Amino acid sequence: MTNRDTFGRRLRLGMVGGGGRSSIGPSHVSAARLDGRWDLVAGVFSRTPERTQQVARKLFVDVDRAYADYREMAAREAERPDGIDAVTICTFNETHYEIADAFLSKGIHVICDKPLVVTREHARALSAKVAETGLVLAVTYTYSGYPMVRMARDMIAEGKLGDILSIQVEYASHYQTQAFSKKDWQHDQAKTGVLGVVASLGTHAFQLAEYASGQRVEALAADLAGLRNPLDDHANMLLRFHGGARGALWTTSVAHGCPNGLTLRIYGTDAALTWHQEHPEQLTFSASGQQPVLLARGGAGVSAGARVASRTPAGHPEGYLEAFANIYSAVARAIAEGRNTPANEDFPTVNEGARGVGFMFTALKSAQLGSIFVPYEL
Amino acid sequence: MTNRDTFGRRLRLGMVGGGGRSSIGPSHVSAARLDGRWDLVAGVFSRTPERTQQVARKLFVDVDRAYADYREMAAREAERPDGIDAVTICTFNETHYEIADAFLSKGIHVICDKPLVVTREHARALSAKVAETGLVLAVTYTYSGYPMVRMARDMIAEGKLGDILSIQVEYASHYQTQAFSKKDWQHDQAKTGVLGVVASLGTHAFQLAEYASGQRVEALAADLAGLRNPLDDHANMLLRFHGGARGALWTTSVAHGCPNGLTLRIYGTDAALTWHQEHPEQLTFSASGQQPVLLARGGAGVSAGARVASRTPAGHPEGYLEAFANIYSAVARAIAEGRNTPANEDFPTVNEGARGVGFMFTALKSAQLGSIFVPYEL
Amino acid sequence: MTNRDTFGRRLRLGMVGGGGRSSIGPSHVSAARLDGRWDLVAGVFSRTPERTQQVARKLFVDVDRAYADYREMAAREAERPDGIDAVTICTFNETHYEIADAFLSKGIHVICDKPLVVTREHARALSAKVAETGLVLAVTYTYSGYPMVRMARDMIAEGKLGDILSIQVEYASHYQTQAFSKKDWQHDQAKTGVLGVVASLGTHAFQLAEYASGQRVEALAADLAGLRNPLDDHANMLLRFHGGARGALWTTSVAHGCPNGLTLRIYGTDAALTWHQEHPEQLTFSASGQQPVLLARGGAGVSAGARVASRTPAGHPEGYLEAFANIYSAVARAIAEGRNTPANEDFPTVNEGARGVGFMFTALKSAQLGSIFVPYEL
Amino acid sequence: MTNRDTFGRRLRLGMVGGGGRSSIGPSHVSAARLDGRWDLVAGVFSRTPERTQQVARKLFVDVDRAYADYREMAAREAERPDGIDAVTICTFNETHYEIADAFLSKGIHVICDKPLVVTREHARALSAKVAETGLVLAVTYTYSGYPMVRMARDMIAEGKLGDILSIQVEYASHYQTQAFSKKDWQHDQAKTGVLGVVASLGTHAFQLAEYASGQRVEALAADLAGLRNPLDDHANMLLRFHGGARGALWTTSVAHGCPNGLTLRIYGTDAALTWHQEHPEQLTFSASGQQPVLLARGGAGVSAGARVASRTPAGHPEGYLEAFANIYSAVARAIAEGRNTPANEDFPTVNEGARGVGFMFTALKSAQLGSIFVPYEL
Repeated sequence: MTNRDTFGRRLRLGMVGGGGRSSIGPSHVSAARLDGRWDLVAGVFSRTPERTQQVARKLFVDVDRAYADYREMAAREAERPDGIDAVTICTFNETHYEIADAFLSKGIHVICDKPLVVTREHARALSAKVAETGLVLAVTYTYSGYPMVRMARDMIAEGKLGDILSIQVEYASHYQTQAFSKKDWQHDQAKTGVLGVVASLGTHAFQLAEYASGQRVEALAADLAGLRNPLDDHANMLLRFHGGARGALWTTSVAHGCPNGLTLRIYGTDAALTWHQEHPEQLTFSASGQQPVLLARGGAGVSAGARVASRTPAGHPEGYLEAFANIYSAVARAIAEGRNTPANEDFPTVNEGARGVGFMFTALKSAQLGSIFVPYEL
Repeated sequence: MTNRDTFGRRLRLGMVGGGGRSSIGPSHVSAARLDGRWDLVAGVFSRTPERTQQVARKLFVDVDRAYADYREMAAREAERPDGIDAVTICTFNETHYEIADAFLSKGIHVICDKPLVVTREHARALSAKVAETGLVLAVTYTYSGYPMVRMARDMIAEGKLGDILSIQVEYASHYQTQAFSKKDWQHDQAKTGVLGVVASLGTHAFQLAEYASGQRVEALAADLAGLRNPLDDHANMLLRFHGGARGALWTTSVAHGCPNGLTLRIYGTDAALTWHQEHPEQLTFSASGQQPVLLARGGAGVSAGARVASRTPAGHPEGYLEAFANIYSAVARAIAEGRNTPANEDFPTVNEGARGVGFMFTALKSAQLGSIFVPYEL
Repeated sequence: MTNRDTFGRRLRLGMVGGGGRSSIGPSHVSAARLDGRWDLVAGVFSRTPERTQQVARKLFVDVDRAYADYREMAAREAERPDGIDAVTICTFNETHYEIADAFLSKGIHVICDKPLVVTREHARALSAKVAETGLVLAVTYTYSGYPMVRMARDMIAEGKLGDILSIQVEYASHYQTQAFSKKDWQHDQAKTGVLGVVASLGTHAFQLAEYASGQRVEALAADLAGLRNPLDDHANMLLRFHGGARGALWTTSVAHGCPNGLTLRIYGTDAALTWHQEHPEQLTFSASGQQPVLLARGGAGVSAGARVASRTPAGHPEGYLEAFANIYSAVARAIAEGRNTPANEDFPTVNEGARGVGFMFTALKSAQLGSIFVPYEL
Repeated sequence: MTNRDTFGRRLRLGMVGGGGRSSIGPSHVSAARLDGRWDLVAGVFSRTPERTQQVARKLFVDVDRAYADYREMAAREAERPDGIDAVTICTFNETHYEIADAFLSKGIHVICDKPLVVTREHARALSAKVAETGLVLAVTYTYSGYPMVRMARDMIAEGKLGDILSIQVEYASHYQTQAFSKKDWQHDQAKTGVLGVVASLGTHAFQLAEYASGQRVEALAADLAGLRNPLDDHANMLLRFHGGARGALWTTSVAHGCPNGLTLRIYGTDAALTWHQEHPEQLTFSASGQQPVLLARGGAGVSAGARVASRTPAGHPEGYLEAFANIYSAVARAIAEGRNTPANEDFPTVNEGARGVGFMFTALKSAQLGSIFVPYEL
């Protein structure tokens, strides 16, 4: 019946974090709910047991499965016959590693917010762990869940753009336009690592560019600045891709008028594509010698990857939560089918999570060396 | 934790229809799921028991509660201690009346697709039934669930536009651009009633205009045409509102390039508002002697009604399913709080459903009299 | 060298009116200048000789040819060997007839602002005069001078839309959003005739719809209202076209947020076109079963009619003055080539001027009869 | 009468170049004509006397003043009592210097296409010449002639953005999307100098950014590439401004779908501005804690600098030729008033022309040193 048909059984989900004031916790919950493939049944939602209990009740989670500690949760859930299939991690960045490692060690799949971790060593360690256990470690690079991003990827993979010449990506936000206030945890180096907007937004832009284009950054030169904050809140980078394409990446958190301005433009020898996250239902396609076409989700000629990521007909807008849900639902299908990599329905894996960490530290190195070009390294 | 907090218990939902090829069934299911306030637990999903069982399994509905007949379902669910709280009706229009009546008679709340029914008598009868039983009968005029439509309504109610002078509404679609084919059930008068696009899209436009403006149509002149289909597929109407405003309504199903083109523009003595369903996150506000402001959902100065209907921050697009979910979640809250009318979270009631039926037949009467102005009547 | 090549000699232009505070006089002057085909050499620019002399000096017009009276100007210019070839009339509507008649009687071509005249009798009389004299009487329906309107006309004429089903046209402005003030001449019936916005904006919308579609209105039903002014400032009309198409026309001068909102949408059996005057460089084309294409002026596949009306490459915006200049330059070419009708370069003739007057009085008659459908008549 | 009032006498203009196939010659001619302040009376329009005569006739230039050689033209015009006041130079870049020098030496003002010259020495020499002679040397950085660019400059100068934090500018075009063909003169190093798109488009972007922001680039790091052409056709640059702002510049000529994509975005501590050349009538203003406002040319609150650069009311689009004409008309007023710098009406001077040349060679130096940051130098 539904356009998002399901399978054998609904999977069981646990959650660590997400009970604070940020919107990311509720988005994970909505994303898990939308297609009915997941039941949220356990969690450590907040730092205090009281608050965790409170959140559990709001989420209809049995209070017996509202844990005070993630290690206890991993152990207890692993023992239950109806224990969770997977856990979502949406805590501070610096805690991702140990939490992910704890659940993977108990045989529980992991869905982790980005950036995956805050050191290269941890990125490599988690990659090894996934290889060793065969479990899923999905990273919620939400924006690659949009149908029209999938369509861009498919069109490029099919050669519709010819050889890729130029990739311009940007992610500008207004979330730190006020001058630095110590209350803002995102400035707290202990919690977020040594990088600011390059980690929080830059990694999204980097992943989106590589995901859609199929190209890999092989060197970059980065100009990082903390214009209003102690950590970087503004970065411009020159990019060189392995296939010869050139490009640039701009990210900032101090841009008035940019609620969530993630934009990708890719130019090839034969055609170009443009996509804006704030108007995600459209992809503009401009072929050599032709007038531009507004490709609408649900419209004619939409790719298989875009179709499988869609729920409603053209003109009935889908958005951020639907893109987020595409990742959750793809993970559910992979687990149900015994895979830890995507097939048909797509999700970002530990590999993309690790590449994002490499990007962060490559940018930092370039900046420390005076913005010279340095090769990408993880 | 979530921005859509819940209450005591998750409500139980049943469903009649929705298992066909149309997208509206899945949209009801997604809308019910998104905020976690409903569990879908019973249904007659299709015309054959086999297909109903099949759909039930996909939806994780217990096969014991996948019924062959809606009367049986109403009776059996009414007897169960864990019976459904409400039923969704998304069958052909001409069956809405008897199904709604059957469930209301058993004390079960109803969520019904639009148009509510296909005769004035049935509209009046359901109004009486709701008055008598005190139950909810919500009508899924989805578009009034959008946050920025709520914002428009709030701004107008607060007098930000001054006196309303002009209301221009339109709903153009491409769903019948192909010349009539007998296979298309929407042409089948036995199933849909005597009206075509005026019923399927026109009622949405009519409700949206009245909902946002707070004005009531008191007379109209309608030019109906079946340009490509046996029933009307194109209608232009002149509107007069009780408060003195003039306006027009255009609806058609034969407009290439219009996936789902619902647009509302309201002009007052002091300011004007414009909203497009295909870009639902924005409302353009133009005050006398000032440059236009792009009001974004989640941005500064958003009204209480828009805020309570939002889940994500500005720049993280919400869409059709979120608007739809707002209606489901508002109904859940009303039921949980023992009301059958909205409070705080809004949903369209039987009154708006009945007014839509009156609109349909007022338009038909005008058309039959040569497009002269006739007073609105139910 | 230029993309607007010229011919034998520069033509000589006179002007009656245009020296007041309105912007329309300067627009005529700029339009005449842009392509170098006209020299402005004579005029009665204002109501007082002093002001006329003042304006003449600003316009580099010899003060000997700055006349106090249009009859004197017509007589004297007709006698000069280097007399004007044509005169522009941009005075109040009610004076158009006698001025046009005076110049035509002296063998001088006329370029007249719209509406052509304010009575049906005068419209018929000027048509007869043009037929009799063989002179040009061009009417500055500026908007039909835009290249992308020409492209729309060409595409429809070539059958790219199939049979025309629906024509929706609107022209909304904010120029009378303030409640009526006696100072505003446009409210002065003695100067403008018995119609308000239907004459000032409605005629533009009507002409644009007929021009681009190639269809003729054969009946209409009009709801006219003076919401803020003594004459009509808001009108909605139902339209029926001779070829069977249905449609609507909306015009108003009390719409906040609408600087100059002229929009045309035409739907055929095979495709649809949309054009907005405030973004005149684009035409959206939506063919059956295909995604919409943004046709840009100067881009691939632009029609001959659009090309001849263009000066700059794609992406170098042309606008209102260029559209206006297209009419002036086409008139110059016609005169230079001894024609009084367009060929290759297009301009609106007395026929379109007269049809606009018929439209005004047909709308008025419908309104006076209670908004019933009445046949178009001149 | 007109909104572009004039002064004492119409000035006399000569022209060198512009008679080829490029559109830039006709644009200069239209720009000079639009406001009636210039008469084109002399020229060397092409490389052969025959073609020059032919173009002269089309432009109504007396064949006696259609010269075979620019030196002859400078000499002869300087001797005439009615000789030209100024000359427009729109030949190949490498010839600008000697032609400008020849006319300045004869006391004739110069309007020169950009880039001003192709060596630093020539840029410095022309600056000295202008200082010495007191003549006008205007550079047609057309885009700074747009009213809404003037508005941006005025708002920033008034402090509406607070301190400038970030400046992102880009100029992407599709003019070289076809792989290199030897026929294309723009690839011919002998004619254009050693730089490609950095000279042809990059200088526009650089000037626009400095012009509007009031900031000066003090260092840059440039990644130049010839992706489809022997000279650079793609460049990304990191920018640092003297006031502490960071930024980036992207320019390319190989971008499908970009007819003329010049975009400027400036972010300050208090607000941000965005402007797109292809939609030049709007400026988006986003202040801290407020929803974005669409500032329309001709609308409320428009700055003095934007008003003096406007001809038509809001909603009557102006474009590229009007922006271009603003520069011509400002030069005319300066000459008429005996100045060689702008006042009230603005135009770019030799200083901005020279800074553009400095930009080109600073970018080249950075690229040659491996894209490291180098200080701006002329």
